[in-house]
Amino acid sequence: MGGGEITKRGSGLVLLAVIPFPEDAAKDTIAEIKEEFPDLEYNYIFQKFEIKKNGLPGGDVDVPADLLKRVNVLVTLSWLPAKESAVPNIKFIQFISAGTNHVAKHPIYTDTKIPLCSANGVHGPQIAEWVVMMDLIHNHNYIDLYKKQEKKEWKHNGELSSKDNVGRTVGILGYGSIGRQVARVAKAMGMNVLAYTASPRKTPESKRDDGFIVPGTGDAEGEFPSAWYSGLDKESLHAFLKLKIDLLVLAVPLTKQTTHFLSSAEFALLHASNPSGTYIANIARGAVIDQPALIAALKSNQISGAALDVTDPEPLPADDPLWDAPNVLITPHVSGVTQTTGERCFQVVRENLRRVRDGRGLVNQVDRERGY
Amino acid sequence: MGGGEITKRGSGLVLLAVIPFPEDAAKDTIAEIKEEFPDLEYNYIFQKFEIKKNGLPGGDVDVPADLLKRVNVLVTLSWLPAKESAVPNIKFIQFISAGTNHVAKHPIYTDTKIPLCSANGVHGPQIAEWVVMMDLIHNHNYIDLYKKQEKKEWKHNGELSSKDNVGRTVGILGYGSIGRQVARVAKAMGMNVLAYTASPRKTPESKRDDGFIVPGTGDAEGEFPSAWYSGLDKESLHAFLKLKIDLLVLAVPLTKQTTHFLSSAEFALLHASNPSGTYIANIARGAVIDQPALIAALKSNQISGAALDVTDPEPLPADDPLWDAPNVLITPHVSGVTQTTGERCFQVVRENLRRVRDGRGLVNQVDRERGY
Repeated sequence: MGGGEITKRGSGLVLLAVIPFPEDAAKDTIAEIKEEFPDLEYNYIFQKFEIKKNGLPGGDVDVPADLLKRVNVLVTLSWLPAKESAVPNIKFIQFISAGTNHVAKHPIYTDTKIPLCSANGVHGPQIAEWVVMMDLIHNHNYIDLYKKQEKKEWKHNGELSSKDNVGRTVGILGYGSIGRQVARVAKAMGMNVLAYTASPRKTPESKRDDGFIVPGTGDAEGEFPSAWYSGLDKESLHAFLKLKIDLLVLAVPLTKQTTHFLSSAEFALLHASNPSGTYIANIARGAVIDQPALIAALKSNQISGAALDVTDPEPLPADDPLWDAPNVLITPHVSGVTQTTGERCFQVVRENLRRVRDGRGLVNQVDRERGY
Repeated sequence: MGGGEITKRGSGLVLLAVIPFPEDAAKDTIAEIKEEFPDLEYNYIFQKFEIKKNGLPGGDVDVPADLLKRVNVLVTLSWLPAKESAVPNIKFIQFISAGTNHVAKHPIYTDTKIPLCSANGVHGPQIAEWVVMMDLIHNHNYIDLYKKQEKKEWKHNGELSSKDNVGRTVGILGYGSIGRQVARVAKAMGMNVLAYTASPRKTPESKRDDGFIVPGTGDAEGEFPSAWYSGLDKESLHAFLKLKIDLLVLAVPLTKQTTHFLSSAEFALLHASNPSGTYIANIARGAVIDQPALIAALKSNQISGAALDVTDPEPLPADDPLWDAPNVLITPHVSGVTQTTGERCFQVVRENLRRVRDGRGLVNQVDRERGY
């Protein structure tokens, strides 16, 4: 029923969080919000998480209609009121997911102008760390080292076979919050950073990241890339892939144009430009890569390897040939999940509460036409 | 004999490299040196590498006495002329190792004032990457993820069990070239950096790194730490260990005072300050840690784990109890070895050739009293 879990306080804005994780997962930030906004009425209803038959996240929740009528701020992953009239006092809806594709067919999305805000930016640090980790594991031959440990074998073969990142080039396809934090860390490791975006970023203004940024991370001003490239057409992409890229990070949204963005022709170009072998890290979506073409590129050593947190399909069946491809590291879509995700989502909530209070525009507001 | 491998050129400084790796391993930098110093006479003799009975690196080499007489710059790992009179024209000896302990009993070290320079600084990037890699592997539970891959199991258990580094604290015991590069990358990941040095660094001057720094890396000015601590006594160390450190990096030289610098009392202090568990990365020497005390701390969860590129003894015997301690990752002293080590060593050679040419003081000159 949820009613018993509701807590109330204050007389200012009415916030309702309908979320699939315990309040404890964000307790520090929630406490800070309550302190900063003593008049806020804070309500929390736990949503039991489930993946519905249509593949989308969901979980039915019973939200009292009278509470809903008073709500100014709804914090949610997937639950939405059936229609706009149920939330006459709503100011904005804050999603705790980076995207809002999963609700794009809901009437609140299609038929209203209620401001929708994503949690874009909260996953930058942890996913960037996954990319850096996989790149280092590959360059430092850590899997071989770990297998030695499993055999209790302490032996140094004297081969100078590992590589460090100084002077190497990282190409980042999709220079958003994740790519920007990869850039920050890569730069600190002595790498050269090349950015690739859908549309050109020629002015200082266009290079900025206007979304939510975890403090101390990312690239707010777009200062790390030594050069910027752009375009959704293959010709533009190919010009980028010819730049002798050592680490290619895929961080683009999945759209018609980015489906199978990397296929046989692209792997051939990468190899021609960098015969010692580009390493590919995919934290976007599996279908950004033509997977049979990837397997062929791995088998023929066109690329030096691939780290894949996303595959096509997911889950990846045990008999998929991708498992047996050489130099591939696969993780089950975990790069964005850490203990701090809950706290970070409420940091976005706090930022938007501040902006409402101060009369400024919301951060991470979704452009319904563009889709993000 | 070596004679056949000697090449000569020019009429300026006479350089002789007696090194245990092929010239190819540093061919780019050697080519740049020849171009920048066209008058340099460059000679190279390959030294077959061996570990001698006394445990020190060695390998006898036959160097023509007449060449030796003319040599101004000797580049070496371990080989030295028997006495000073054999090298009457020597200006400095450039070692390609970070330390010179292995020659500290040689007459050239004990009985002469020939300037000796180390290759301190060349290993910063790769060893820092090893530290970062191991920290990430631990925080992101990568070993568990890899075991899933081995079973072709693509499953996300939904537990928010991994951690990212934003807001966490790294304590660096020994703020030299390695620790400074760890600091640079840690800061980029959003960490708070605490530095610990043998002697106090209270002035901007004393915080500087005057040694060789791989361009684009390190912390030349000492700008990354939020606070500096120092002291070789246990009381000073204990004050540092009380600072709720999440990642403790051991990068101190092994001396009488740092032998068993971390033992039961220190693990207890770390735990009291950070009950969720400090992670320890040791890239110094195995004996900096009291290993039985470490095993006990791992078994009792006083610390969250340890990454050890160095052990006591080395090699670590297959029946050593350290292998069976929980949450320990062991690699066979490989963190400093990458494909670029040869190039980097010759970058130090080049830097010192420039300094001789320009009449400036040598970089990385060893203080025989201090021992490094």
